Amino acid sequence: MRTMNPVPTTSNPPPRHAVVIAIGTELTLGQTVDTNSARLAQWLAGLGIRAAWHVTVPDELAPIRAALAEAARRADVILVTGGLGPTDDDLTRQALADEAGAPLESDPESVAHIRAFFAALKRPMPERNLVQALIPRGGRAISNPVGTAPGLYVELHGTPCYVLPGVPAEMERMFQQEVAPRLRAAVGGRVLLQRRLHCFGLGESVIGERIADLMQRGRNPEVGTTAELGIIGVRINATADAAPQAAALLDEAERTIRARLGDVVFGRDKQTLSSVVGQLLTARGATLSTAESCTGGLLGKLLTDVPGSSTYYLGGLITYANAVKSGLAGVPAADIERHGAVSEPVAVALAAGCHQRLGSDFALSITGIAGPAGGSTEKPVGLVYVGLATPTDVSARALQLGAWSSRRMIRARAAYAALDWLRLHLARVGR
Amino acid sequence: MRTMNPVPTTSNPPPRHAVVIAIGTELTLGQTVDTNSARLAQWLAGLGIRAAWHVTVPDELAPIRAALAEAARRADVILVTGGLGPTDDDLTRQALADEAGAPLESDPESVAHIRAFFAALKRPMPERNLVQALIPRGGRAISNPVGTAPGLYVELHGTPCYVLPGVPAEMERMFQQEVAPRLRAAVGGRVLLQRRLHCFGLGESVIGERIADLMQRGRNPEVGTTAELGIIGVRINATADAAPQAAALLDEAERTIRARLGDVVFGRDKQTLSSVVGQLLTARGATLSTAESCTGGLLGKLLTDVPGSSTYYLGGLITYANAVKSGLAGVPAADIERHGAVSEPVAVALAAGCHQRLGSDFALSITGIAGPAGGSTEKPVGLVYVGLATPTDVSARALQLGAWSSRRMIRARAAYAALDWLRLHLARVGR
Repeated sequence: MRTMNPVPTTSNPPPRHAVVIAIGTELTLGQTVDTNSARLAQWLAGLGIRAAWHVTVPDELAPIRAALAEAARRADVILVTGGLGPTDDDLTRQALADEAGAPLESDPESVAHIRAFFAALKRPMPERNLVQALIPRGGRAISNPVGTAPGLYVELHGTPCYVLPGVPAEMERMFQQEVAPRLRAAVGGRVLLQRRLHCFGLGESVIGERIADLMQRGRNPEVGTTAELGIIGVRINATADAAPQAAALLDEAERTIRARLGDVVFGRDKQTLSSVVGQLLTARGATLSTAESCTGGLLGKLLTDVPGSSTYYLGGLITYANAVKSGLAGVPAADIERHGAVSEPVAVALAAGCHQRLGSDFALSITGIAGPAGGSTEKPVGLVYVGLATPTDVSARALQLGAWSSRRMIRARAAYAALDWLRLHLARVGR
Repeated sequence: MRTMNPVPTTSNPPPRHAVVIAIGTELTLGQTVDTNSARLAQWLAGLGIRAAWHVTVPDELAPIRAALAEAARRADVILVTGGLGPTDDDLTRQALADEAGAPLESDPESVAHIRAFFAALKRPMPERNLVQALIPRGGRAISNPVGTAPGLYVELHGTPCYVLPGVPAEMERMFQQEVAPRLRAAVGGRVLLQRRLHCFGLGESVIGERIADLMQRGRNPEVGTTAELGIIGVRINATADAAPQAAALLDEAERTIRARLGDVVFGRDKQTLSSVVGQLLTARGATLSTAESCTGGLLGKLLTDVPGSSTYYLGGLITYANAVKSGLAGVPAADIERHGAVSEPVAVALAAGCHQRLGSDFALSITGIAGPAGGSTEKPVGLVYVGLATPTDVSARALQLGAWSSRRMIRARAAYAALDWLRLHLARVGR
């Protein structure tokens, strides 16, 4: 494969403004959610490049060309994902060649890479994979260490344009290994740093009121809020000539926001409720187990999303059927009969039983009505009880997560509420 | 709130081409993944309207106006989400007013709705929520049954433009209740119907080769493939003057594709591996339980994503720590010591122990190395054993899910592989 120069050869100005283009009819028709553009935008921001315009177009030549042409006018650098696959609906190469006015040519080193990839898997190479080695004349291949499709680098009307496969794992590896170093070299000094604080327990508008002065337009850092499944994000973006100054601006804003919001702020950036709970448990050398009914394993899944969670998370019980609540967690059948499976006594018994049977220091339990069916007037959809067993105590709380909420939302908020309860308990009783 | 007319009053042609605009700096910076545009595009396609262009712009007046102006040129109908919140970074209302050349005015009925919303929650109304009642003169409010922000309907240079909040649950309810009926009335006859087949067990390029003739460009129906976490989607889009003809085209294409791919096709449209397994279990009145190590509850979570899964899913064991594997599932400590926790004998013992202790007809187990740490030369990251206990037999299989794969990918593929094994077992032994 021809090696790319360390920095694009033309004397373009340092890139500041990117356009991100996602290509795929499955995306424009909404059959797949595009996550690539968001991830690229985040990585670009880390390099001080702002992706202020994202466009998604179908696997059709004319819209792809239109998007490329418009991006070349609007941006200093273009990032494209998708449409590099081996099948007939993959048209990105052709559209690039058309827009660049350069014919497609087979790149011998890319051909060798594709053949070697299939040989290593001991699988025959479908002939059609060879179209993935086609590159517009004057462009260069970007090597793909984890798949068959090489990426492409071309200049479109003078604007550098990097094209990566749509498969997220391949896109990530190729961006980080091949594209980011080149962009970093091209950018030089001025940087945009971003930070995100994560909050649980207050609504977006209340949080917005408490930090309204910081959210006024035109300020640096720029502060804004987002909401998803009950978790409110406060994003802070700071621009400065160098990273230390930008970081100082972020630190100052973070201190102010934390002072206003208190322990509603549970973490920042890549921290999640699960990872923060994990840090608090690790700090005191304590262990956790879970007993889940309506969340069906989601709480355990969230906890074990965190690499290394095996040091504090022992495991859990998914007590979906009532017989399993009694058999595995020792919930008295009489409690279920008298109060119902969705009740405070059952949440308490689940937490206590799990605590005892798994021998953990703490245990969380969840039982509720996730819907859409199963609600009643006294116990509507969205009613959830969360239980917490500590080394000295067991208790439960009722949550009303909204009869109009989706099953997905109710399950997520129930799991988050359980994690947040444990977080606040661990933080407040100290180490 | 002023009521919208059932159909926009101007004599626009039936809408065929939509532009979908997502507004939010958290989206352009990639801090949040935009799922709204994909969902809107799917719903629009169901109405025969093709959203062939999606744009995402930050919370800034100039790019929002530029996107609106361009969309008005490009589309018959514009759908916008986001930027209707109560905080200072929400500028969609102002940008619409500027682009429409109409001043913002407070809508008394929207004010009443917002006040009533907070009164029902017994929470004081932050004054700043009143900005959500501002509407460009000549526009109309779209009522929001589940939140404070009304949507907006305006015409931009003659093009109908619907603006909905960015909160997915609010956006969905308002689109389905308020916008879809108006678009359906405006569209009239010609429809685009779509279907998606889901495959597991073959790679995208092999599937692409088997159906290459159907994927040629310009055909109706249009056929394409996508890949995500090992699940390959085959989408079929058919256009016709009326729904029955479009459906017949879909049926014919589906028959052909199924004949070529066999039982690699596990479902279509909203079906998932979990829902298909659930249907197969329900058909024979059988029950299932799970024992999970490296997936930590993900398999249970996937199974209970399906409403009504309590009729066949009894529950499970999350046996993350080795002591829990022995204590809860009865895995002999000697097996763990001799073969390691990630081994065929342990996968077999987990499935057998879970089967017996939960009293289910079938049980699935998973034990593996999800990474990023914990791998070795003999047992690299990505090595996973899946076990299946049936009423008559227990066995396990090794999977090698790739040392370069992410923790998320390894966990998802392990859970899918377990579900797919049970699916094929249930389908092959018949009912």
